[in-house]
Amino acid sequence: MILKSQVEWALHCCAILAGLPAGRYLSTKALAEFHGVPKEYLSKALQHLSQAGLVDTTLGPSGGYRLARPPAELTFLEIVEAVEGPSRTFVCTNIRANNPCRPKGYCESAPCAVARIMWEADEAWRQKLRSVKLSDLVGILSQEIPEQLWKDSFEWVLARAG
Amino acid sequence: MILKSQVEWALHCCAILAGLPAGRYLSTKALAEFHGVPKEYLSKALQHLSQAGLVDTTLGPSGGYRLARPPAELTFLEIVEAVEGPSRTFVCTNIRANNPCRPKGYCESAPCAVARIMWEADEAWRQKLRSVKLSDLVGILSQEIPEQLWKDSFEWVLARAG
Repeated sequence: MILKSQVEWALHCCAILAGLPAGRYLSTKALAEFHGVPKEYLSKALQHLSQAGLVDTTLGPSGGYRLARPPAELTFLEIVEAVEGPSRTFVCTNIRANNPCRPKGYCESAPCAVARIMWEADEAWRQKLRSVKLSDLVGILSQEIPEQLWKDSFEWVLARAG
Repeated sequence: MILKSQVEWALHCCAILAGLPAGRYLSTKALAEFHGVPKEYLSKALQHLSQAGLVDTTLGPSGGYRLARPPAELTFLEIVEAVEGPSRTFVCTNIRANNPCRPKGYCESAPCAVARIMWEADEAWRQKLRSVKLSDLVGILSQEIPEQLWKDSFEWVLARAG
């Protein structure tokens, strides 16, 4: 069970978009170049973010993407779910119903205990992702990335932002 | 990101094997019939459990599987990882290294903050699965499954156990 690469790309793109001044947009081309990832595939990840309402988009020569909300109001879970979908990681196909000893017409009122435990684990994963805001990530990156690299990256992005 | 169906099957099979008396084995055929799942695919799930050392197996007409350890010493995580492998659900491809502004030869000492946060969420999922023992599941099932169905299922299994 492995998340799509697009989850990694989407999180990194959102971190870059978080640094854009109000009213500016960054193109898929610039985001792909900055992260060294294929533009066509990145474009799908960005469309997922757009469909989920996490980024705004404009068309045209200076078009591109910007965050639809402040980074403090965007969680990791929202970004991950925009790409992966909101489905639980465990699908219960209710195989207990195939038990040859079950009386005809018998039907349980509650979901299977196996599924409930697996869903609790899924929820623990989501809860952690829900607790981290995009602004938390930007705060960590601003501490960890050397000052000059941080500044140069910001200027690189601004030079390409529409 | 969805777990394989074989995870569901493996958990249910372990719950059934937990009820076998000492020294008895249950065949793939019986486990497949009880759960209404294809024998060939279930066989792969059982082989994973065997390779991980969670079940013992014997060959021959009365051969099959039994738990290698008491249910109180088997965690959900062990069963899930036997099927899915121990890999983290988030793979970091370190795309920050593609940043065109990075000085040549520059190399971070710590993993990317994006990966660290995603791995913490992964660990929260694993921690929950590690906290639940197979014996906990059996305890819940023995409470929830109607007494007659529980008894009939046990007899069905015993009649087929080698």
